[in-house]
Amino acid sequence: MIPTPYLLFLGDAPDQLAAKVAQGIKDWRPENAVGQFRLPGCGASVGIDDLTLQEAWDAGARTVVIGVANRGGVISQAWKDVLIEALEMGFDLASGLHNLLRDENDLVAAAHVAGRTLHDVRIPSVAYPIASGVKRTGKRCLAVGTDCSVGKMYTGLAMDAEMRKRGMKSTFRPTGQTGILITGGGVPLDAVVADFMAGAVEYLTPDNDADHWDHIEGQGSLFHASYSGVTMALVHGGQPDALVLSHEPTRTHMRGLPDYNLPSLEALRDAALMFARVVNPDCEVVGISVNTQHLTEAEANECLAEIETRMGLPAVDPFRHGAGRLVDALQAL
Amino acid sequence: MIPTPYLLFLGDAPDQLAAKVAQGIKDWRPENAVGQFRLPGCGASVGIDDLTLQEAWDAGARTVVIGVANRGGVISQAWKDVLIEALEMGFDLASGLHNLLRDENDLVAAAHVAGRTLHDVRIPSVAYPIASGVKRTGKRCLAVGTDCSVGKMYTGLAMDAEMRKRGMKSTFRPTGQTGILITGGGVPLDAVVADFMAGAVEYLTPDNDADHWDHIEGQGSLFHASYSGVTMALVHGGQPDALVLSHEPTRTHMRGLPDYNLPSLEALRDAALMFARVVNPDCEVVGISVNTQHLTEAEANECLAEIETRMGLPAVDPFRHGAGRLVDALQAL
Repeated sequence: MIPTPYLLFLGDAPDQLAAKVAQGIKDWRPENAVGQFRLPGCGASVGIDDLTLQEAWDAGARTVVIGVANRGGVISQAWKDVLIEALEMGFDLASGLHNLLRDENDLVAAAHVAGRTLHDVRIPSVAYPIASGVKRTGKRCLAVGTDCSVGKMYTGLAMDAEMRKRGMKSTFRPTGQTGILITGGGVPLDAVVADFMAGAVEYLTPDNDADHWDHIEGQGSLFHASYSGVTMALVHGGQPDALVLSHEPTRTHMRGLPDYNLPSLEALRDAALMFARVVNPDCEVVGISVNTQHLTEAEANECLAEIETRMGLPAVDPFRHGAGRLVDALQAL
Repeated sequence: MIPTPYLLFLGDAPDQLAAKVAQGIKDWRPENAVGQFRLPGCGASVGIDDLTLQEAWDAGARTVVIGVANRGGVISQAWKDVLIEALEMGFDLASGLHNLLRDENDLVAAAHVAGRTLHDVRIPSVAYPIASGVKRTGKRCLAVGTDCSVGKMYTGLAMDAEMRKRGMKSTFRPTGQTGILITGGGVPLDAVVADFMAGAVEYLTPDNDADHWDHIEGQGSLFHASYSGVTMALVHGGQPDALVLSHEPTRTHMRGLPDYNLPSLEALRDAALMFARVVNPDCEVVGISVNTQHLTEAEANECLAEIETRMGLPAVDPFRHGAGRLVDALQAL
């Protein structure tokens, strides 16, 4: 686990999009974000106080999170002075960048001297077991997509937030670096060694209270030629009681695969349910999460109505309309 | 690639079963096995000449393969003198043991001084790409199982051997350590990082002549809760033109998962074909490979006849009856 709360380091982010990770932390776990730290020329803000390292420390922050994505994922030399000073003051550092904190000799040296930890959340920090397939207590919901990057993480976070608002027992279980930074822990599933993928998902979602829901962050798609194995491990390791189908209706081909069409929602439903029932015969598809960001409000409503009628399941865009109806569907199970 | 041919090191193998890897090399690539090396007390033999290191070197051997599985997969201290002498003479060493050659300081030192290579075939030696899904030339056949360890490797090796016998263009493509040691190269798929699994399979089975067949070694099962993600990557990375279903009819539950039943051959056929057609719309299931080792000849024939009638596809045990009818089915495609 990464010590919380955080100071969000935006560095010299050129624009708001580059600060997506920091924005996600502020949106979903505002209690984890005591402030932001920006260098001269920074073009982004997540709308919280600009704090010095000392102010952040005094406010309780214990980790500086690099909440910014550079082109190429590199750790800019311009950031180093601040990051080294932070280590010397007692902060841990956390990053989801492709280039690793642990590969920067000056950061490693400073962390060693200060006795602090560098959290590279792209790299597994646990020796995960082989999946046992043994039935676990508690409830689990998994979003499965017609494609990658269609809103599965957002759906899980929104359902978790809605459940907490209703006083239900709920935990979001991250499987990618952004989700791990948001909550402070999880499994970077795409970096786990093949044999241990499903076991890592079992590890992430252990036995729990009978009325507790894990919202497992989905990855990839069963129909995506590059990443389907990761998705399969989520379905079998997750033992889901409920599946939410995630879809982006304007996508013209599978992400990164120009020759590949998206599967239909019906094909996704049937395939995901068949494999989920191998590990949990009671699994049901409870609803559809549609990412309508590229549609007008009128187009979105029309699209959702069409899908809802066709599939006979609640179809919502949790960003536009909240995840209430999806949570209703889980409560009705 | 591991330099061939080999001297097969049987060490102090307690019995024949412990020499399974060496036996596989001798059975499938006898041209790779110039001789065997046994220590006092060895209870195994693969039926080829016992050679000294010098005799093996003179006969052309360039790698000493540890063709024996110890309890716990350890590299016995009793082996070290021979292995170090072999390195000093100019041999490489190759091993599929769980404990790695590279973790033995004395072997690492001897290899370094002699300028030789330690081949730990459980560990990927290549930075595999993310799968592109781009259609490749040539033909590919993949065995998919109702369970793990039902004879998929044997099926692929037997079909490859039969094709070569017929003068067809054919290559066996190993995805596990035994297969890699047999042929001298391949991808240890269960040790590849999740995001690169399908890409590793694409890498293993590149563009080829239009009439060339790759026989891709299958792993796991789409229905095995622990390893299904690896199997999925084989289906999507392999772009199979042909699938062979592999089955062991006396298995009472999924290997290692006492609470899990095996899927039916029909369920396996439908699931595997659906996902294979995502990457290759022309894919067909061509036959069924049944491992009848626990049945009498009469029982085996009855079992095969029942499956053949039920599934409408050739059903054979390639160990008992050869892979001829499976190859016939590929030729008829």
